[in-house]
This record gives sequence, C-alpha cells and structure tokens, in this order.
Amino acid sequence: MTEQHTVILLAHGSSDPKWCETFERLAAPTIAAVPDSVVAYMELAEPSMESIVANAVEHGCRHFTVMPLFLAVGRHLRKDVPEMISVMEKAHGVKINLAPPVGENPQLGLAIREVVEATLTTPGT
Amino acid sequence: MTEQHTVILLAHGSSDPKWCETFERLAAPTIAAVPDSVVAYMELAEPSMESIVANAVEHGCRHFTVMPLFLAVGRHLRKDVPEMISVMEKAHGVKINLAPPVGENPQLGLAIREVVEATLTTPGT
Repeated sequence: MTEQHTVILLAHGSSDPKWCETFERLAAPTIAAVPDSVVAYMELAEPSMESIVANAVEHGCRHFTVMPLFLAVGRHLRKDVPEMISVMEKAHGVKINLAPPVGENPQLGLAIREVVEATLTTPGT
Repeated sequence: MTEQHTVILLAHGSSDPKWCETFERLAAPTIAAVPDSVVAYMELAEPSMESIVANAVEHGCRHFTVMPLFLAVGRHLRKDVPEMISVMEKAHGVKINLAPPVGENPQLGLAIREVVEATLTTPGT
C-alpha cells in the first residue's frame, strides 16, 4: 500500500472571492494531475491549511507537502507559515514538508516570458 | 521608425533584497527576449515605476505597458496601481496600458503543475 500523501497548494487568502477564484484556476491543472492535492489558504479564506491537515489526519494521512503559491519568500513564508506548520506537526504527530515557493523555480520565469509575449501581441498593448 | 514602447514588469517590492532578487530572476527570461522591458517596483524598492517612466519619457518614449508580476488582483492592482498610472499619464502626457497580472494567464497554472510535479519527485518531499 502506498503511503498517503496530501499536497497542499498554499495561497495567502483574501476576503475577495475573485482573488480566491484566480488561485483556484491557477491550481486546477495541478489538482487534476496530482493525487490528493488541494488548495488551502493561510488566512482570510477557507479552507484553511489547519482544516485540510486535521481532516486528512482523521482519514489516516501522516505525510504532507506544502507548496506555496507565492512568487517569492517574504515574512509569511519565512516566519508565519513555518510556525503554523510546527504547531500542526506537534498537534497531530505528522510530518509536513514546506517546499520553496513556486516563483523560485525557473519554470515560472519561462511562463512569465510567454505571458508577456502573448500580451504584447494582443491589440491595445 | 518603430514607435518606442517600454514594457514594465511590475513587482510589489520589498525592503528585503532577496525578495527583489527572486523577481529579477523571474523577469530575466522576459528581459532577455522582449526589447525595452525592465523590472520596476510599486513600493519599498528601486527602481520605482515612476523613475522608469520619467527616464523613458526623457528618452522620447510615449508608450508603456505595465505587466504586473502578481498572481491575482488585490487592492494594489484594483486601486493603487491604476491611480499611480493615472497620475503618471497626466504628468508626462503619455499612454500607459495596465495588463492583467501574469497569474490570470492559464500558462502560469501549467507552469505551477510542472513545478509541483518536479518538487514531489525530489527526495525529502
């Protein structure tokens, strides 16, 4: 039996539902391709990272990876998220890996180039 | 003669130089491919959007596109950046197009999937 592994695509969160919808669209290809991957929010929106972890633990999952849907490391990823992860690891007796933010991978820079080139060829820009 | 067109890759900005370095790396493929493209910061770091526009205007540029290196539209892109752009357009008599943030393009979601899949195959995750 393969060990269960939940992949949390972590976005900052916002009280604006349109903001969250953008992240849900950004996450959709990953959710379709990666088993047990879900979007969660650090604050201001649901589901929270805590509720995702608590629910998965209830269903027997002990292994988590948090993939921040952030472009760069700021205070949240340097301080707040590691602290939240440490609290959840102790509370549930699980291992939660925090991956670098997606923006640190060169793949994102290549995608940005494609987006800029496509934008510049559309009328009005 | 082709009309001069400056493409501003706009990041939020941070007092942390490492944060800015991440955005410079993210922008590097675009800067290498798109003529007259530059990184600028909304606040907390240099060069500012204002200094880039003022300098380009001095060199004869009248046409600008701002490409936000943001994943989604929050208050900054809904309110602050349009206001800054409006002030600069009036001050310099130029046209500045504000493009949607890169995260609204489906290309970014595909890149995120590739990053997540690559991260999950590295040891330790």
